Amino acid sequence: MKVAVVMGSISDKEIADKSVGILKEFGVEVEMRVISAHRTPFEALEFAKNAEEEGIEVIIAIAGKAAHLAGVIAGVTPLPVIGLPVKSSTMDGMDSLLSTVQMPKGVPVATVAINGGENAGLLAVQILSVKYPELRDKFKEYKIELGKQVKEMDAEVKK
Amino acid sequence: MKVAVVMGSISDKEIADKSVGILKEFGVEVEMRVISAHRTPFEALEFAKNAEEEGIEVIIAIAGKAAHLAGVIAGVTPLPVIGLPVKSSTMDGMDSLLSTVQMPKGVPVATVAINGGENAGLLAVQILSVKYPELRDKFKEYKIELGKQVKEMDAEVKK
Amino acid sequence: MKVAVVMGSISDKEIADKSVGILKEFGVEVEMRVISAHRTPFEALEFAKNAEEEGIEVIIAIAGKAAHLAGVIAGVTPLPVIGLPVKSSTMDGMDSLLSTVQMPKGVPVATVAINGGENAGLLAVQILSVKYPELRDKFKEYKIELGKQVKEMDAEVKK
Amino acid sequence: MKVAVVMGSISDKEIADKSVGILKEFGVEVEMRVISAHRTPFEALEFAKNAEEEGIEVIIAIAGKAAHLAGVIAGVTPLPVIGLPVKSSTMDGMDSLLSTVQMPKGVPVATVAINGGENAGLLAVQILSVKYPELRDKFKEYKIELGKQVKEMDAEVKK
Amino acid sequence: MKVAVVMGSISDKEIADKSVGILKEFGVEVEMRVISAHRTPFEALEFAKNAEEEGIEVIIAIAGKAAHLAGVIAGVTPLPVIGLPVKSSTMDGMDSLLSTVQMPKGVPVATVAINGGENAGLLAVQILSVKYPELRDKFKEYKIELGKQVKEMDAEVKK
Amino acid sequence: MKVAVVMGSISDKEIADKSVGILKEFGVEVEMRVISAHRTPFEALEFAKNAEEEGIEVIIAIAGKAAHLAGVIAGVTPLPVIGLPVKSSTMDGMDSLLSTVQMPKGVPVATVAINGGENAGLLAVQILSVKYPELRDKFKEYKIELGKQVKEMDAEVKK
Amino acid sequence: MKVAVVMGSISDKEIADKSVGILKEFGVEVEMRVISAHRTPFEALEFAKNAEEEGIEVIIAIAGKAAHLAGVIAGVTPLPVIGLPVKSSTMDGMDSLLSTVQMPKGVPVATVAINGGENAGLLAVQILSVKYPELRDKFKEYKIELGKQVKEMDAEVKK
Amino acid sequence: MKVAVVMGSISDKEIADKSVGILKEFGVEVEMRVISAHRTPFEALEFAKNAEEEGIEVIIAIAGKAAHLAGVIAGVTPLPVIGLPVKSSTMDGMDSLLSTVQMPKGVPVATVAINGGENAGLLAVQILSVKYPELRDKFKEYKIELGKQVKEMDAEVKK
Repeated sequence: MKVAVVMGSISDKEIADKSVGILKEFGVEVEMRVISAHRTPFEALEFAKNAEEEGIEVIIAIAGKAAHLAGVIAGVTPLPVIGLPVKSSTMDGMDSLLSTVQMPKGVPVATVAINGGENAGLLAVQILSVKYPELRDKFKEYKIELGKQVKEMDAEVKK
Repeated sequence: MKVAVVMGSISDKEIADKSVGILKEFGVEVEMRVISAHRTPFEALEFAKNAEEEGIEVIIAIAGKAAHLAGVIAGVTPLPVIGLPVKSSTMDGMDSLLSTVQMPKGVPVATVAINGGENAGLLAVQILSVKYPELRDKFKEYKIELGKQVKEMDAEVKK
Repeated sequence: MKVAVVMGSISDKEIADKSVGILKEFGVEVEMRVISAHRTPFEALEFAKNAEEEGIEVIIAIAGKAAHLAGVIAGVTPLPVIGLPVKSSTMDGMDSLLSTVQMPKGVPVATVAINGGENAGLLAVQILSVKYPELRDKFKEYKIELGKQVKEMDAEVKK
Repeated sequence: MKVAVVMGSISDKEIADKSVGILKEFGVEVEMRVISAHRTPFEALEFAKNAEEEGIEVIIAIAGKAAHLAGVIAGVTPLPVIGLPVKSSTMDGMDSLLSTVQMPKGVPVATVAINGGENAGLLAVQILSVKYPELRDKFKEYKIELGKQVKEMDAEVKK
Repeated sequence: MKVAVVMGSISDKEIADKSVGILKEFGVEVEMRVISAHRTPFEALEFAKNAEEEGIEVIIAIAGKAAHLAGVIAGVTPLPVIGLPVKSSTMDGMDSLLSTVQMPKGVPVATVAINGGENAGLLAVQILSVKYPELRDKFKEYKIELGKQVKEMDAEVKK
Repeated sequence: MKVAVVMGSISDKEIADKSVGILKEFGVEVEMRVISAHRTPFEALEFAKNAEEEGIEVIIAIAGKAAHLAGVIAGVTPLPVIGLPVKSSTMDGMDSLLSTVQMPKGVPVATVAINGGENAGLLAVQILSVKYPELRDKFKEYKIELGKQVKEMDAEVKK
Repeated sequence: MKVAVVMGSISDKEIADKSVGILKEFGVEVEMRVISAHRTPFEALEFAKNAEEEGIEVIIAIAGKAAHLAGVIAGVTPLPVIGLPVKSSTMDGMDSLLSTVQMPKGVPVATVAINGGENAGLLAVQILSVKYPELRDKFKEYKIELGKQVKEMDAEVKK
Repeated sequence: MKVAVVMGSISDKEIADKSVGILKEFGVEVEMRVISAHRTPFEALEFAKNAEEEGIEVIIAIAGKAAHLAGVIAGVTPLPVIGLPVKSSTMDGMDSLLSTVQMPKGVPVATVAINGGENAGLLAVQILSVKYPELRDKFKEYKIELGKQVKEMDAEVKK
């Protein structure tokens, strides 16, 4: 099982690393790429066209501002594409969010929260776990762990 | 393969029917439900808790305004949850979109465009097709058909 | 008289402490909790279901981003629920505000200003004072004090 | 038990009537008023100053655009004030919402959803029910009824 | 000729000082006040009611968040009221702007840019200069000076 | 006493007429013009340059979208300029409002509510009444009348 | 001289026709196309790659929602690309505008107003007139005509 | 070939320098100016009127807040005008963007991203290259270089 984590610029790597961290934690193979819908458009389409054949099963696309990367890839590949909008220096992430989520009929992008690097990784895991029962099991443990952390905080403030 | 299409109120049924239409077109079994995170919260958790066991593989949650349904279900189930924000009579869908997509770390919701009924259905198909090759093939045909329609429009305006 | 101050994450504690500070100033007993609508959903419903029996009379729910905590609790309990939206790292609090206030018909959340920790506490006091005349009296003194402070500032700038 | 439903203009009466309808359904006495923070400011303060003495226990203030009515009343009375923002012909209710909810430290307004007439009434009932057990009981029945309606819709779409 | 510069809290003094600076530069007498529409509402109305008699000819009202001060004063006095919205810690000033400018029919507030301290002062000068020719003359000089500064910058970048 | 009511296009005449109606009601002479900052820029500057000499004392500038008319006129004339933003077919008036109100330091525009035709007229009256006591008196009567209307509505709903 | 007018869907044809109308009025050859960045991505790149060779000198790209068409074409062609954002059924055109204008460093899109069909055509004419003096002359006449219309309206309201 | 880079205030010089840097890199002559639509309106019109005669072929206009500079210049000159909105201390650049892009029918402004100094320069180059083949060639090299940078980043993260 393999997920591609594609970012529009190396400046998004900090957020991409959060997705990669989650994926590795779950034992998912990751292919990390920098591909730009605007500066390397042919590479973007080439990547999207070949992704399935190369064994990629889910794609996470990370971009900011007029964030077209996820949409352009989703236009080509039949694979599920997760869009991760990044907050840039203006507009508080609103431009990135709307550019990613408001896709026209026929070409969905599974959008997560602005700067939600971990959640993009987790959503990829959830999608893969439709097929891989061992991931489903790990994800359930992850959810239990998540709940535990909250319960510990709860115990702390109750004091 | 089975997808649950859950809406917060029967007033969202018109949009839900678009998701269902796509799913049926792809031969996916659909379970349609009206469950409210606010008016039937225990049923919402019960549904989410049992969904996996009942053979549901993907959940589409449809809600408007302070749209909590997708998030609440995603908090319980390990299944991938697609959030479909609905435009209500005020705020032009912005409230529904932000309530659905801006999920905290640990609990992603795969959000599609406001009122994007078809896209929620298609995203469910794409997710299922990670596991079911026959769906993948149908989805590729769907994409080809989509392109054909554009080419026909193109031929029309070129005249 | 007892108020529960529930936050979605311990990172909201600084703001929660402002509510608690006000409540203690007014002599109201406080139960502080960390409960997450997404990471501990069953605990959230359990808490909401038992709150009345445990002597809680008003609930303050504090959350950010897709802030569902207040709404989910309000879906279960008959107690008045005050929603306190918290500004997170993106969207300037707009996502939290809309997720908290735009509740559907039937399940209101009494929403205060973004990051308005003191005001959530004061609103709880005002609600309790419908029943407890001694709180009403203290609240009137608080208002007089508030006015005095403004008058002192006024005297200062008049110079 | 008595609630005042105050609107800034008779053009808000349709929404006010929704609050009144709920209140009467719960057997709460209602005093309906048209008072403007801008056109009858002295009457607004007079009303707010005397409300407690006249047996009013909760105030619902309804206004649109630069919606100052709830805030101005809350500045005077110790009673809990519910702010109901109304959508006007521009700005989709955003101006009314922000003018109502973003109150400064010291003077909270319990804000409900834009045009949320029923919810303002229900919140008043919830607040009163802190004192009046019979209202609490009725409100619980209301919540059960609310859930029943959803379950009926659910049964309908399940078919 | 006298202008009142009224702020909702002493925390707005830095911006108020910009208005005052302009007014003094033009030789206009200034009365500076801290008055709150919410914390000293009776003082606010008292001030507004007496302003004309006390020789005040224009009022500048400075407030943030749910900025009601200008509107409340404008509801009482026949004097022209300038609203100066202040950016607070959330919402980037949008709440203050909409609360100040979106006044209902019958009660205008002359709103200037967010944090536009100097412009509030200048607008007061322009209004007064309808009556006082000497202010008109000074204002013309001010405009010439303003243009000169731009021309100097222009000369600088042309090099 | 004379006020110029200048609109960017004859399509704004309906709103301009509301300003004119108020001004005539108060016995103020009106000069109505269609001048565009973009389509007749030289006429705009010419108008602004001569306005004072022609006896105009206040200018109301009405425009939508990228609403530059008020700002451009205010850049030339020393007269107080009232900006009246008009809602166009997109953006709900937000573009017009921000283009009108967010003027840079040195050149204020006295902005009223979106589509606030009457209020622009009333603000002009208030400004003129700094100089003309008879207008001040009429404006006070107008305010009393405004209050009366509210009191009549109040009497009506009280029944 | 030739301009391509490319739209993402035939539903944008009404707006495209406004651009085409202007271009034909100026005697510019037009190639009209329906090409989708998401449904026919390879055609989009193919078109953009060949545009220069086929004698196209300026491209107008028309799209709504997550409007990627202009950006994707601009990523490939060296020709100037005009982006024309279209208002769709939600978000009042804000999504289209931000998706079109907020392009990353290196790949500009010359964006015009939402639904600004005529302006996209006129901007294309202005760009071409850098090269073709006869277009410049016609454009000057157009501007004079534009001014005349305003002056006629002005004469009308002056009466 | 010559481009004018006009800014509303010397505080925008940092962003203007990015445009100038690009233009010089492409060997385009630059005329840099500080001209204000509000503080030196006659100079603005004078500049716009003479620009063509002085050999300027494209104008870049840079401004923030109620950003009228580009629109006012575009109202006078037949040359293509590029609008570069600048983020100021409030509103996150939204005011500047809408004031620049939402131009009325007849007077387009070619708007680029907020603070997009380089892109304004590049768009000017693209416009000029319609006429000057040597610029077109250089721009193609620029695009290749842009792609190379992305490919290098790609190689880096692939490791």
